[in-house]
Amino acid sequence: MSKIPVGVLGATGTVGQRFVQLLAEHPWFEVAAVTGSDRTIGRPYGEGVNWMMPGDVPQRTAELIVQPTSLELDLPGDPPVVFSALPTAEAKEWEPRFAAAGYAVVTNTSVFRMDPTVPLLIPEINPDHTALIPAQRAEKGWPGFIVASPNCSTTSAILPLKIFQEAFGVEAVILTTMQAISGAGYPGVSSLDIHDNVVPYIGGEDEKLQNEPTKLLGAVRDGRLLAADIAISAQANRVPVVDGHLASVSVRLGRRASAEEAIAALRAWRPPAVVAQLPSSPRELLIYRPEPDRPQPRRDRDAGDGLAWTVGKVRQCPVLDVRYMALTHNTLRGAASGALLNAELLLVQGYIGGNRERSPNGHHQTAAGR
Amino acid sequence: MSKIPVGVLGATGTVGQRFVQLLAEHPWFEVAAVTGSDRTIGRPYGEGVNWMMPGDVPQRTAELIVQPTSLELDLPGDPPVVFSALPTAEAKEWEPRFAAAGYAVVTNTSVFRMDPTVPLLIPEINPDHTALIPAQRAEKGWPGFIVASPNCSTTSAILPLKIFQEAFGVEAVILTTMQAISGAGYPGVSSLDIHDNVVPYIGGEDEKLQNEPTKLLGAVRDGRLLAADIAISAQANRVPVVDGHLASVSVRLGRRASAEEAIAALRAWRPPAVVAQLPSSPRELLIYRPEPDRPQPRRDRDAGDGLAWTVGKVRQCPVLDVRYMALTHNTLRGAASGALLNAELLLVQGYIGGNRERSPNGHHQTAAGR
Amino acid sequence: MSKIPVGVLGATGTVGQRFVQLLAEHPWFEVAAVTGSDRTIGRPYGEGVNWMMPGDVPQRTAELIVQPTSLELDLPGDPPVVFSALPTAEAKEWEPRFAAAGYAVVTNTSVFRMDPTVPLLIPEINPDHTALIPAQRAEKGWPGFIVASPNCSTTSAILPLKIFQEAFGVEAVILTTMQAISGAGYPGVSSLDIHDNVVPYIGGEDEKLQNEPTKLLGAVRDGRLLAADIAISAQANRVPVVDGHLASVSVRLGRRASAEEAIAALRAWRPPAVVAQLPSSPRELLIYRPEPDRPQPRRDRDAGDGLAWTVGKVRQCPVLDVRYMALTHNTLRGAASGALLNAELLLVQGYIGGNRERSPNGHHQTAAGR
Amino acid sequence: MSKIPVGVLGATGTVGQRFVQLLAEHPWFEVAAVTGSDRTIGRPYGEGVNWMMPGDVPQRTAELIVQPTSLELDLPGDPPVVFSALPTAEAKEWEPRFAAAGYAVVTNTSVFRMDPTVPLLIPEINPDHTALIPAQRAEKGWPGFIVASPNCSTTSAILPLKIFQEAFGVEAVILTTMQAISGAGYPGVSSLDIHDNVVPYIGGEDEKLQNEPTKLLGAVRDGRLLAADIAISAQANRVPVVDGHLASVSVRLGRRASAEEAIAALRAWRPPAVVAQLPSSPRELLIYRPEPDRPQPRRDRDAGDGLAWTVGKVRQCPVLDVRYMALTHNTLRGAASGALLNAELLLVQGYIGGNRERSPNGHHQTAAGR
Repeated sequence: MSKIPVGVLGATGTVGQRFVQLLAEHPWFEVAAVTGSDRTIGRPYGEGVNWMMPGDVPQRTAELIVQPTSLELDLPGDPPVVFSALPTAEAKEWEPRFAAAGYAVVTNTSVFRMDPTVPLLIPEINPDHTALIPAQRAEKGWPGFIVASPNCSTTSAILPLKIFQEAFGVEAVILTTMQAISGAGYPGVSSLDIHDNVVPYIGGEDEKLQNEPTKLLGAVRDGRLLAADIAISAQANRVPVVDGHLASVSVRLGRRASAEEAIAALRAWRPPAVVAQLPSSPRELLIYRPEPDRPQPRRDRDAGDGLAWTVGKVRQCPVLDVRYMALTHNTLRGAASGALLNAELLLVQGYIGGNRERSPNGHHQTAAGR
Repeated sequence: MSKIPVGVLGATGTVGQRFVQLLAEHPWFEVAAVTGSDRTIGRPYGEGVNWMMPGDVPQRTAELIVQPTSLELDLPGDPPVVFSALPTAEAKEWEPRFAAAGYAVVTNTSVFRMDPTVPLLIPEINPDHTALIPAQRAEKGWPGFIVASPNCSTTSAILPLKIFQEAFGVEAVILTTMQAISGAGYPGVSSLDIHDNVVPYIGGEDEKLQNEPTKLLGAVRDGRLLAADIAISAQANRVPVVDGHLASVSVRLGRRASAEEAIAALRAWRPPAVVAQLPSSPRELLIYRPEPDRPQPRRDRDAGDGLAWTVGKVRQCPVLDVRYMALTHNTLRGAASGALLNAELLLVQGYIGGNRERSPNGHHQTAAGR
Repeated sequence: MSKIPVGVLGATGTVGQRFVQLLAEHPWFEVAAVTGSDRTIGRPYGEGVNWMMPGDVPQRTAELIVQPTSLELDLPGDPPVVFSALPTAEAKEWEPRFAAAGYAVVTNTSVFRMDPTVPLLIPEINPDHTALIPAQRAEKGWPGFIVASPNCSTTSAILPLKIFQEAFGVEAVILTTMQAISGAGYPGVSSLDIHDNVVPYIGGEDEKLQNEPTKLLGAVRDGRLLAADIAISAQANRVPVVDGHLASVSVRLGRRASAEEAIAALRAWRPPAVVAQLPSSPRELLIYRPEPDRPQPRRDRDAGDGLAWTVGKVRQCPVLDVRYMALTHNTLRGAASGALLNAELLLVQGYIGGNRERSPNGHHQTAAGR
Repeated sequence: MSKIPVGVLGATGTVGQRFVQLLAEHPWFEVAAVTGSDRTIGRPYGEGVNWMMPGDVPQRTAELIVQPTSLELDLPGDPPVVFSALPTAEAKEWEPRFAAAGYAVVTNTSVFRMDPTVPLLIPEINPDHTALIPAQRAEKGWPGFIVASPNCSTTSAILPLKIFQEAFGVEAVILTTMQAISGAGYPGVSSLDIHDNVVPYIGGEDEKLQNEPTKLLGAVRDGRLLAADIAISAQANRVPVVDGHLASVSVRLGRRASAEEAIAALRAWRPPAVVAQLPSSPRELLIYRPEPDRPQPRRDRDAGDGLAWTVGKVRQCPVLDVRYMALTHNTLRGAASGALLNAELLLVQGYIGGNRERSPNGHHQTAAGR
């Protein structure tokens, strides 16, 4: 079975590089086109990019000529697929144009996250939200569509909330994050700002933390999103850590539960069945650590190849109901890997990869299209 | 005017060194005796100490011979005064023995903080709590007494709570701290634990954060402490910062108030009148910073010579009522300087420094000397 | 005695801010004009600047309107004086134009450092190099002149070299520096480049380290500079430290000397007599630390208000003759404070501050002009 | 084919843990016995150890009971093999006792490194030095023997020296290292010592850096070591980096060579033929990076699974002949992995693993098992 050729929009930035790195080894997708900044257009990707990932630029992508972001990428596919790591202003312009031109746009940008017809997606949390896609197409008049992944800080806190929501209901959340410098891209945070320091501000992040979970934890009924009715109060902080976002969270539950019940719920939880078909989803998705001093960014961020949630310090909250600490790798689970998982879900659900046959080793396949 | 000679118990540790450094320049007190660990006993302080403070060991203290901690210090004074920076086990043994022998023990240790007859004291917050001293003497049968200063992390969050309590009442508090490595003393935190990392655990700290404020914000009536009825939920974290404890705090008020009212209360607050007589209390005690990215440990910890609170990000909390960030220097305001301020208060209030008269400008004078 | 009004060119950058901060308290100079980037022109300095220094913007400077860099500053003085912290390209254009217009240009930039007629100056090292000024004026046809201060990394290593040169002669130097992030200005070094890392590259720095000392340690004879005949090999590294440049240096001496003799030379050295008249030069200029683990950036950078050299680990070099470690504060001694000292020297020597009288407290004064 | 059972002495420390982690996946060896500190003796390794490595304790080792270090380990093998990560004092006592009892002691400790009969070994550099083993046995009267691996800082600089020695001769070396905190073990360096700081001192390290290379680069003739005649001058520094030792090196060659020739020599060099048979030796042993800003600890330490040397900045030295920067991972190449490679070499050369046959593809096989 041949791989699906995809485009990476904004492939020379740090998230774009991560897409290129992850796609180099991906069983289903391969990079067929890259777009980049003016400085890099027309040069081989391997020469134009200021490669920040471990190891070397993947050989095949290195030889691709960087193109301007435009509809002339002329990718094959039914629909053709692009991953977007564009800067915000360009995402705002180009993502709808690609969708209007029939592309499936799998984006890591924030522009359309809160659009009620755009699925804000973590396959292990709300895979059914792709049911918004037909409504999106109808409302926007697009043959293609956009699916978004949440902000990296939202991601770090969300899985335990999902589990508590299912088990007990969730009414209110107060959280304080400690976020890594890589979340700001490159050059991103000046070393003079963050060395020996904490900065209690990340532009727009408190709002994202307060809004995105209500959508992620919401329900889709009849093609419409019903946001979860949860009050959220957030304070995002930048700390001098390279990778790994840590969240300190207090939750008021729908019905009272002890710390032991909360821990039992975490341990008992199993992801939706479709997750078993996603090659990038880790074997152990939620790692509960009973030690009093975990999770820690440096020691836990790489768990599950950077795709697991590590959760600890689950205990009673003397003001609300339960407290916990949760950690994810912000540039893997929280960004490029998360978006890649979204594409895997779209393929399994038949939204992309039309006219493909099932692979013999079973991972999946579309029968005919949708 | 001669200065009051004082002893420093545990003078070779980091907090002890800070006492020595601060007392070298103090207008009212001077170091007359130092006690230390076995390794250093019998040697001049300047040789025995592994000096970690900026600059050199103060000349006069450097020449003092380190003594074992014992009642044979034989300090003059009415009562004689010792500052305690002893390790916990030794504090437990020696602080009561000194009080029983008639000493005023001004301690930075945690052992007796929650004893209902021991004032847990920040002069700018609850100077009237020294009214517990007679009850303490009566109950313990001590001619001397102990006064304690709170944990450095409690300190960072407390001043805005006090102000909100006075203005609106405070019912519940959820806080997450980001604490500096110097809070653990020396050698303290291993660099392998904290470099490029956050550790969501400091032994006993969550409990201190949940208990101490109820005492600090309590009332003393008829020589008895009435703890404040406030539910507190705390998560203490260690971050890779040298100095400066930062607290992220959400508060449920007694009566609803807007962010603007909360800010106005902070700006309008004035410390108790007695504070004007304390030479170490900074001119500007509470610095409200309107920028969205303050306070920051490295940029704000030295405000007011490390004795000011810097507060910012005061805003509505979507779950409780208001949120804020507050910062203090943990080894100055949060430790040695705080205890020194307690001694200044005791002198102004007449609990120590018998036979001395007040100077007209509010600073002190001995009548005759001793 | 009134202070001399001066201009600060490029006053909104980090070095320019340091000039503004230091000049606010200076006994001889005061800021009368500031120039800045397009973004800030026309606004009060206190509003336009992104202030990075400790404390607040000095009140008087805060009210000055930021001007474009031009000859219309119209400063008084004989000659008028400007401190330059301009970006390189602007320094190249404007410093000669100010000199041609009669200004004394005291610059911290690198553009004219190696011009043979421009004194490269550290008052405590080569105060006699101002004798190049008349030649500079003659050769360039300028009524004014330029004096430069060396690169901050050159500065860290230079004082022991000077002393060894005087005592034994110096033939060759091999050095490796470990330089602080503040040396790159703001935003300067990306935190993603330097966190948990060392970068063995600072653009142009190896060359400066190899060239500037030969000029600083050279002689001025008959108005001409004779560079010192010293071979220098340098490797500059950036390390994750906020402030303080540390140099590891091996030296081949003109005549063999033991480590003890080298240490004795350091201890015996006294700065040139004129230094006693410079208010910013620290009481103790060279601090020799005998401990095996000093100097250290965080513990020694603030010695002498950031203007002292701390030197240690002087010992025999098994390949050349002696080794040592030396440290200075890169933004104080190595940048703004160093340039300010140059201006103090110029005033004492009569190159600036014409028509001034001696101050009663003696620090100096020009009689009539030069 | 069964694996060779080995013991790990001092298995609960950081180097010991690294041995356990690496051996869990090793094709030839498996851990059959672990010794540890008093605190851990008698408990399952997985419970007693404070595991600092990534991931979990390897299952099989986790179940081993920690034993006291003694000859009663009773390991099989011809000879039986132990890896030593003992503390220095214990290594001094126990390593000779194990050798005297017939064991092959593969040590990472420093105690016997400079013993003229103990091979100081890096298989890719001086595999022929195992020829000292018969002399060692004869001289000490041991049926077993000790082989040592060099200090982690020596390791970082050594490979280019070896190559230059072969190509041009090496007469003198001046080096300055920047070493990671993990080199000091756990708890090791206090965060208060190294945060925002550089410490120009690591106990005994300068001496090791000055001595060990003369042995590593020496020759073995007739069972005797002839040390290389190279003068070395070293300054070791600790920097705030988790892993990766970086060395800045200047070299006087035996015959003059240009930077281009030096680079060509690095590129042309091939390791000794025996290296092809060592499963842990990386495919690309020496990575020459032409960029001006490499090698960097965070970006290059993991090259070749932490076993490659990354070298860059090769250029002319204005004082000696050539300069370069070199980096290795200090706990992998510089410690546990290096010692493991030594054991692989011993097996290939027949010093351990008696009664085993070589596999045709260069990997090993036991003939019968044991």
